Amino acid sequence: MSASTGSPPPRRRGRPPARRREETYDRILRAARVCFSRGGFANTSMTDIATAADVTARALYHYVDSKPELFAAAAERAYERFMLALDAQVFVYDDALSRLHGYVDMYRTLYKEDPSLVAFVSLAVLEASRTPGLRITVPAGVLTSGGAHEAIVADAVEAGQLGPGIDAAGAKALLDVFGSGLTLMAHPDRDAEYLAMLDAFEHMLDGPLVLGATAPPAAPPPPGGGPAR
Amino acid sequence: MSASTGSPPPRRRGRPPARRREETYDRILRAARVCFSRGGFANTSMTDIATAADVTARALYHYVDSKPELFAAAAERAYERFMLALDAQVFVYDDALSRLHGYVDMYRTLYKEDPSLVAFVSLAVLEASRTPGLRITVPAGVLTSGGAHEAIVADAVEAGQLGPGIDAAGAKALLDVFGSGLTLMAHPDRDAEYLAMLDAFEHMLDGPLVLGATAPPAAPPPPGGGPAR
Repeated sequence: MSASTGSPPPRRRGRPPARRREETYDRILRAARVCFSRGGFANTSMTDIATAADVTARALYHYVDSKPELFAAAAERAYERFMLALDAQVFVYDDALSRLHGYVDMYRTLYKEDPSLVAFVSLAVLEASRTPGLRITVPAGVLTSGGAHEAIVADAVEAGQLGPGIDAAGAKALLDVFGSGLTLMAHPDRDAEYLAMLDAFEHMLDGPLVLGATAPPAAPPPPGGGPAR
Repeated sequence: MSASTGSPPPRRRGRPPARRREETYDRILRAARVCFSRGGFANTSMTDIATAADVTARALYHYVDSKPELFAAAAERAYERFMLALDAQVFVYDDALSRLHGYVDMYRTLYKEDPSLVAFVSLAVLEASRTPGLRITVPAGVLTSGGAHEAIVADAVEAGQLGPGIDAAGAKALLDVFGSGLTLMAHPDRDAEYLAMLDAFEHMLDGPLVLGATAPPAAPPPPGGGPAR
């Protein structure tokens, strides 16, 4: 994936002062993220985003040249925030269990900050993968790109902190599954449910999600095809 | 979401015999699912699908009238398979833990049958939600539509099988997160990793994913912003 500019172009004569310019640009990136998260790339117009950012469509083009450029800049900003949160809430700990608690808590923080921030992280990748001409820069380490999840698992292996029977590659892929599910399900209109889900997730790190026999029981007689194994 | 036809139109004069016609239609639906899963709705042409199904583009239009109709029929077929698997591998058990083991095993079975079958289940919803004119029928009970996940949790609550501290709404939303992650990450080119992930998932149902203190330790001094809680 190729790079795209993440900061506003230099100030030109007759434009608003730099600080206000930066605030407006922030607002545009946030509006873009919210609109793209909700409607996807193809169904979101520059006018939609201008309206949401409370600027004119003409003013929008003082900041970005095109919709793909705006999408890429919004994605870059979201990933930057994500990377900061990973450092501050996950890798601030040394042991695997604290890191996983911090991982869940990071989603809690980001979701409370803005659900579209969480949602956009996987939607941006999905959209970019299937929209010709749309390119985004995903920092190494976010989601499935291997960084954070791989580091958590690799350090856990080294410290002997993987649970009994848990395979390293499987655990890394499992974190990828969690991460993509956590971002994909971050709808702004399901607040209480999302936060309750994160609570359940944290509980599951320390104890069972559901109770029962410790090993799967023998399968009952298959009704037709029956359960595979 | 409105309905779309799931079975081939009745045999017409001069057409191949019914059984061959049905086999061809199955092949077309499978090819559509594979192509759409890989490239998305917008980037997949009817010619791509015809080629993958080993029929001419003209022959393809004997079975479906349009690309949206083909997409809907392929989705319907995938959901049918999914619902059958839920019955045979999850709800064949009565207790929550066996059902969750069966749930993971269902993904194993479907993924081995065809990774695009698993991938298409969430991608079809995503695509339909953001492509004007694209309508699919999702049976009540698949994924986040509330059926299967809600039933598993409701029965677990009634049987007193939810883990200590686990909230019912949170547990249901957590299964939604798992389900969307499990379908979203089903890439056909990551076979070994996907199956190892499912193994790790199953282990996690019976024991810890990572070892450590049973409660999250106190946070270290925050480096700047610091971990939230």
